[in-house]
Order: sequence, then structure tokens, then C-alpha cells
Amino acid sequence: MDATMRAKLDRAFNPRVVAVVGAKKAADYSWLRNQQEFQGKVYSVQIDPNEIPGILELGFTNLSSLKEVPEPIDYVICAVPRNVSPRIVQDCTETDIGGVTLFTSGFAETQTEEGVRFQERITQMARAANLALVGPNCMGIYNPRLGLKFGADQPFGGRAVGGAAFLSQSGSQASGFIQEAYAQGVGMSKVVSFGNGVVLEAADYLEYFAEDPDTSIIGAYIEGVRDGQRFVEVLRRVTAQKPVVIWKGGVTEDAARATRSHTASLAVPMALWEAIMRQCNAILVHGVEEMVDTIKALQYTKPLTSGRMGLIAVAGGHSVEMADCFSREGLRVPALSERSYEQLASWFNTVGGSYRNPLEGGGNLGDEANVERILNILEDDENVDAICVELGGGGSQARSREALDRRVATLVAARERLTKPLWAVHGSVVLRADTQTMREVNLALLTGGVPAFDNFTRAARALYRFIGYSQRKLGED
Amino acid sequence: MDATMRAKLDRAFNPRVVAVVGAKKAADYSWLRNQQEFQGKVYSVQIDPNEIPGILELGFTNLSSLKEVPEPIDYVICAVPRNVSPRIVQDCTETDIGGVTLFTSGFAETQTEEGVRFQERITQMARAANLALVGPNCMGIYNPRLGLKFGADQPFGGRAVGGAAFLSQSGSQASGFIQEAYAQGVGMSKVVSFGNGVVLEAADYLEYFAEDPDTSIIGAYIEGVRDGQRFVEVLRRVTAQKPVVIWKGGVTEDAARATRSHTASLAVPMALWEAIMRQCNAILVHGVEEMVDTIKALQYTKPLTSGRMGLIAVAGGHSVEMADCFSREGLRVPALSERSYEQLASWFNTVGGSYRNPLEGGGNLGDEANVERILNILEDDENVDAICVELGGGGSQARSREALDRRVATLVAARERLTKPLWAVHGSVVLRADTQTMREVNLALLTGGVPAFDNFTRAARALYRFIGYSQRKLGED
Repeated sequence: MDATMRAKLDRAFNPRVVAVVGAKKAADYSWLRNQQEFQGKVYSVQIDPNEIPGILELGFTNLSSLKEVPEPIDYVICAVPRNVSPRIVQDCTETDIGGVTLFTSGFAETQTEEGVRFQERITQMARAANLALVGPNCMGIYNPRLGLKFGADQPFGGRAVGGAAFLSQSGSQASGFIQEAYAQGVGMSKVVSFGNGVVLEAADYLEYFAEDPDTSIIGAYIEGVRDGQRFVEVLRRVTAQKPVVIWKGGVTEDAARATRSHTASLAVPMALWEAIMRQCNAILVHGVEEMVDTIKALQYTKPLTSGRMGLIAVAGGHSVEMADCFSREGLRVPALSERSYEQLASWFNTVGGSYRNPLEGGGNLGDEANVERILNILEDDENVDAICVELGGGGSQARSREALDRRVATLVAARERLTKPLWAVHGSVVLRADTQTMREVNLALLTGGVPAFDNFTRAARALYRFIGYSQRKLGED
Repeated sequence: MDATMRAKLDRAFNPRVVAVVGAKKAADYSWLRNQQEFQGKVYSVQIDPNEIPGILELGFTNLSSLKEVPEPIDYVICAVPRNVSPRIVQDCTETDIGGVTLFTSGFAETQTEEGVRFQERITQMARAANLALVGPNCMGIYNPRLGLKFGADQPFGGRAVGGAAFLSQSGSQASGFIQEAYAQGVGMSKVVSFGNGVVLEAADYLEYFAEDPDTSIIGAYIEGVRDGQRFVEVLRRVTAQKPVVIWKGGVTEDAARATRSHTASLAVPMALWEAIMRQCNAILVHGVEEMVDTIKALQYTKPLTSGRMGLIAVAGGHSVEMADCFSREGLRVPALSERSYEQLASWFNTVGGSYRNPLEGGGNLGDEANVERILNILEDDENVDAICVELGGGGSQARSREALDRRVATLVAARERLTKPLWAVHGSVVLRADTQTMREVNLALLTGGVPAFDNFTRAARALYRFIGYSQRKLGED
């Protein structure tokens, strides 16, 4: 990507002036409504007289062409029908704009002659003009700091803002990422959904985010890449600067049919992907939950190359399940040192509890001073590399909010004292938990430097991936 | 298990008269409070004068000994300290009772000489008297039809009642099962948490549930069995009568330490367990979510021996993910027949959608008549064995309640018409969904014979296990 294109993309990702082309009542003027919190100027471009009154009612200025906008436009969102799209792309090439998102679909992904022809036409126009075209067949750009959105209920400002960038060939997966990252307390710099990616593709957004000062870590949902060699070269360069976490959609043969008709992407055999990811030291995940968990682990954990866990559970059955989950995901739950067992034996009540590792038992853990003592013992135990504590914040072992807040305070205080990684996990089955409480607890813990995960398997999987990444990263040095 | 013991257990599982021994203020009288919806008579037995006023205030009759209760007691819950427990067990053997749950812990699971000695003492007393002793170190019996509970917020009556029984060595996993089953709309007959199981163990509860007319399917959380040969014999016999789904806790080497200190259970190598489960045609699952999903699949799906799926997704990215998830879990997502493609080509709009399988596209699916048409095409397609439809009820692709209700009506109507299995799935990431809405949708679908699952992986895993079970079951015949 040349400096001119970078400067254009920079305008599109951080706009002051936005234009929405083709907002219409049938879509509830959603592309305009999405920008109601945008911290800049928004123009509407619409020539259909039936649509204009509704646009004016929402309080937007409407013009009949991009060329009539009285100031440079940093970012254009184009939601016109396919057959109109070449004319708008033409206008974009003749106007001072930063970038344009083509929401419009019906191109090569339809696998029809007509769709392919339309795609070739807009691609040639955009390339000839060095136009920063995002898409087509996509949702475009989300910038939570500026309130630039592609969904009206996407979060804006506050804890939504942070260092994680996400590039996605799928709009629904980009939306899912924003939702899950926000719920988990992972702040975002920028998200881009780029669909068919005919001008700018994954490698370009990777390059852009690598240099973006607001971005410290990059996630990606990729269905396919056009120029494989360039992608690998760029990925290797970018992972040397910032961690890159990749979710590959269409890894199975059956899903490859879906990627073709979704974003016109060609399949790459999974074994090849895995080899490339390892070679480039990117982190491969499956699904948006693993994506967000892994980013959280990377943001809040110092490099760790060995996975012998000291675990604390809230109940006996959970201690068994927690050990099974961590062990199954590739970590170890070792016996503690003799010295630790001697210290624990002097006060730990084994009636209704156990300290074999996992440690568990309501009676012993009801007192925060005991939790502190246990954390100190695990810190000093040479058999233990990292510590994970079940919060019991949801599910059948739910604790009161007061008890949860006390545990959070204990963990945050311990974080300042301990040198070993310290993680928290909400519990076993937490799907029925109060999600607002979970988010508040997550944020309080993250503020204190302790990442919390939803359940045992998610925690173990993220830690395992993190350790693998640390090992490869340290091996490089 | 002899007929006398069965009759005793029958009284304990379906009591009219319950006695709670040792309720105390420090535990907020929880064992009495748990019974406040119980549809029978509850007596308290407590001799501590400091505890009695609080018990009377709650409205319970208090007596100073089990022997003073003026009628036969079907079920005793004993929550006294360990050192008092032999005296209460002695009383139980000298009184007309059905069964007794010993909540008390501190026995062999502590791995102390004293704990082992206490356990041997109560075991010998109970066995000599052929006492139906549940536990010790457990939560005992839940019967939702009668409002007999071991947690105050456990559901009672209505849709909580159904054909699923669950036996568990862990109290927290039994609680988790009740919560998850209720959330998923899976009704329960009885649940028992039996801890160390010194008199009655897994095989006994299996035998009991096999003959229980209220139970149509049996789930189990097992950490270990004392008499392996008997367990296998009983399991084989029971699976011939009713499906049995087993979650083995402590399958990893690291977790075996936890099972010893939790329920004093010895580990069995996982490979051996898997072989036994297959041989007995039990279904092996990991975790409470897989347990409930598999039970739901078994309750609502006719035998199915091949897993070529026709899938309908709400968005392009979801269609790729759905195909990946189903394929990764061992199912197939085939191309449809030429005939289906011809029929679809005549009307399906591929701008923003696709019908390659998965079928997806908001524009096409916005109209329920189109969903009906697609379901009929998949029903007639010889490449498809079963159908699964994404509801989009939660997560980033959330739809309005009205739209969800329309889709539910379409699926329920289709269920009456179609011969192929029809499943629903809420979506990709649904953790942040409105759980009340999800439960209502689940119940409406189940009433119409359509099981719904929380996310793609959970649906695929349950269907895969179900197909494996069907294959083995039909192979037997």
C-alpha cells in the first residue's frame, strides 16, 4: 500500500465528514440512523423525491450528488442498488474523498455472469483512480472513539475504545466481534468489514493497522485471500510489530462452498493455512469467542512459556471439571510442592474442601484472607507457572454481588503483589448468568490487570494459545 | 437392588412426609427453606435451643428426635456435623423411614484416617439395617413435581417437570444440570446428588430410574464406581430399556487427583471408559451443556443414521461458520440435488443471499412463505437427511420478537408436514442474548416438536452424538 492510499484510508478510518448515499425508508434509513452519535458532520445524498422528506425529518442535510457536498468528504457510505453503484463509484473518483464503503451486494459472490461483470467494472474504475474502496458486499468501518458505526446499537466511547483492531470479510462476524469484545471489556480502535475486498484486501488492512498508533493488537476473520504470497509477506512483517489473531472461515470442505457464495473467496486447504499461520507466528482461532478471549489474554498477560496451573474452584464437582477442561486443552494441573502442602495442612479445613490442586471448598474460601494466603502459597510454589481462580459469579454456584466484589478486590490486590500470571474464570455453565454483572466484574478485574473468562474451557483454550504464542515469540528472539 | 430397597427408594424419591435434621441459623435454615414449596408435610428435628426459635418462626414444627415424628417419614435430610451423624443414622435404622440423605461431609473424601473411620462406621450401620442412605457428602433428591428441592431457587412444577432423570456424584453438577435443563426446556422427573455413594451408588440409581415410570431418559455425572463389573452389567441392561447419557468427571490424569479428594473416587482410564460406554451403548458427553443438549435431541428426534445436513443461516458469515461447525463435529453439508437448485434458481434472490447449502439471505428469508418453500425443497432433496434452521434470536443477528414468533410458527407447522428431522439453532454467539426470550422460544418450539439449541457447535455436537447412538441402536436390532 502506497503512502497516498494510506493517507486516504487514514481519513476514512478517522473521518470528520461523512456522506451516506442511498439511505431509504424501506431500510428505516438505517445507514443515517447508524451515524446519529457520530462526532462529526454527516451529509445525506439521495435523489429519490419519495425518500428525501424522511431524511430531512431525521435532521440530516440532503444533497443530490456527492459533488455538491461543500467540503472534502473523508468517508462515503454507499447503499445504492447494484446497477446504480458504478455511477456513485465514478462520482467518488471525481470528488475529494478519503474512502468509500460499498455496502451494495450482488457482485461476484452471486456466481452469476452479471454479478462478475459489475464487479470487474467497479474494480477497474476504483483501481484506475487509486480509490480507497472498502467492499463491495460489506458493512464498512466502525470507529468507537468517533461514534462511526455500521449498526445503531454498537457501543460508542468509554470502555468500547481500546487497542484491538478487527478486519473481517464478513459483516455479521464483524458485528459479532464488536458485541463480544464490548461484553468482555476488550476495547477497540477500529473494525472494518470489507466483504469481497476487490481493491483493498486483508493484507492492506493488516498493513494499515500495523502502523495505526491506536491499535496494539489485530484480529482478523478471513475467508480467502487473492494474492497469497503478498498476504504471507505482509503477515510476517506485521506479526513482528503487533500480535495478529486470525479466524479462518471456511476451513472445512463443506464450508468452502459457503465462502464462494458469501465473499467469492476460494478455499485454501486447512493444513496449508495452519502451516502459514505458524510460520508467520500468527495465532489461529475458531470463532469470535476464541478471538476475543485470545486478544484479552494477549493484552493482559506477560509472556508465559509453561502451563502448569494452580487452580482454585468454588465446589468439588467444579474442581474436577476445571482440571479436566484445563488438562484437555493442553495445560497441566500438577500436584503442589511438599512445602505448599505442609503450609496448607496447618489450617485448611478438608471437611467439604480440598487443597490437592485444584483447591476448593466454600468454608475455606469464604474468608478473603484465606484466598490471599492460598494465592501467596501458589506464587511461591515451584510447580506452578500461572494461577486461575473461579469466581462463581454465574450459574448454579452464583455468589452474591458483595461476595463477588470482595473476591475482585482480593484478586486485584494480589495482582500487584504476585509475579505469576493471574487469571479469573466465571464458572462452569454461565450462560444463564446476569450478563450485566459479568461485564461489570470483567471491567473491574481488567482495570486491575486481571483478565476474566466466561468458562473453564474458554479460559484454558485462551491460555494454551497464549503460551504457544509466547514460546514461538521467545524462540524468535 | 432388592425389592425392599426399591420400595424404600421409591418413598424417598416421591415423599409425602419429609424431616430435616440439623437446620441452623448459620446456614440460614437453608434445608428447611428449600422445602417451602414442598407439596407434603415437613418436620424439623433440632435439639439446640438456640436454633429452635428461628425454625418455629419459619412456621415449621420442630421435634427433638426422628422417633418423635408422629407418622412414617418418607425422606430424611440430615445436615448435622460429622461427629453427630452416626447417631442420626442409628435413629434412621430404628425408625420407619423411606430413605435418608446425608448432606454431612468430612468422610473418606478428606483422605484422613478419621474421615475414613467415620465413613466405615456409618456405612456398616446403614448396610446392616438395609437403610436407603443417599450420600454422604451430597445434596440428595430433587423432585420438581413435588417441589422437593436442594436449592431454594430450583424450579417447581410446570415445564420443570418431564421425563429426564439425572444422577450425580457432584452436588454442584446436579445443581448445574437442573438450571441448564430448565433453561433449555428439558423437563425433569428426578435428580439425585449422591456424593460418596457408600450404600447406594451409580448402578443402584440407574436401576431405580430404569423402572421409574416418570423417567424416559437417564443422565449421569460419574466420577468413579466401586464395583465396576456390576456397573457395566446394570448399564447394559438399563440402556436396553432407556437411553443413558453419561458425563465422566475426572477423565484426565490431572483431574483424577480432584475426584479422589471430592468423592473419594478412584480414576478409570478414559480409553477404558470409552470402550465400556460404547459396548453398553451409553452416550458419552463432556459437560452439562452437552448433557442437556443430547437429552433434548433424544427426546425430540426420530432415529437418524446419516448426517447430511440441509442448513439455513441468517447471514453470509454465519453460513460459513455454521458449515464449518457442523462439518468439524462430524456431520456433512452436501451440495443439494440438481432438482433443488433448479427450483431455487427460479425465485431465490442471490443478491445478498445464497442457496448453495447453507441457504442464507435476509431478503429471501424475510418472508415466511419463502422459508416454507425452502423447507419443502430440503424435505424432497435426496442429498439431505436432516434440516437445521438458524433463528437469529440472539447475538449480533438478533431479530425482533415478532419476527422470531413468526419463524417459530413456520417451523412448528413444518414439523407436522415434514418427515425429516427438523432442528433449530439460536445463532453464532448468543451469550449476550435475552435468556428469557430464548427460553420462551425454546419452549414454544419444543411444544411443537422442534428442539432448539444455543449455538452451532452445540447443535452439531448433539446431532452427531444422536446419530452415533441411532446407528448403534439400530445395529443391535
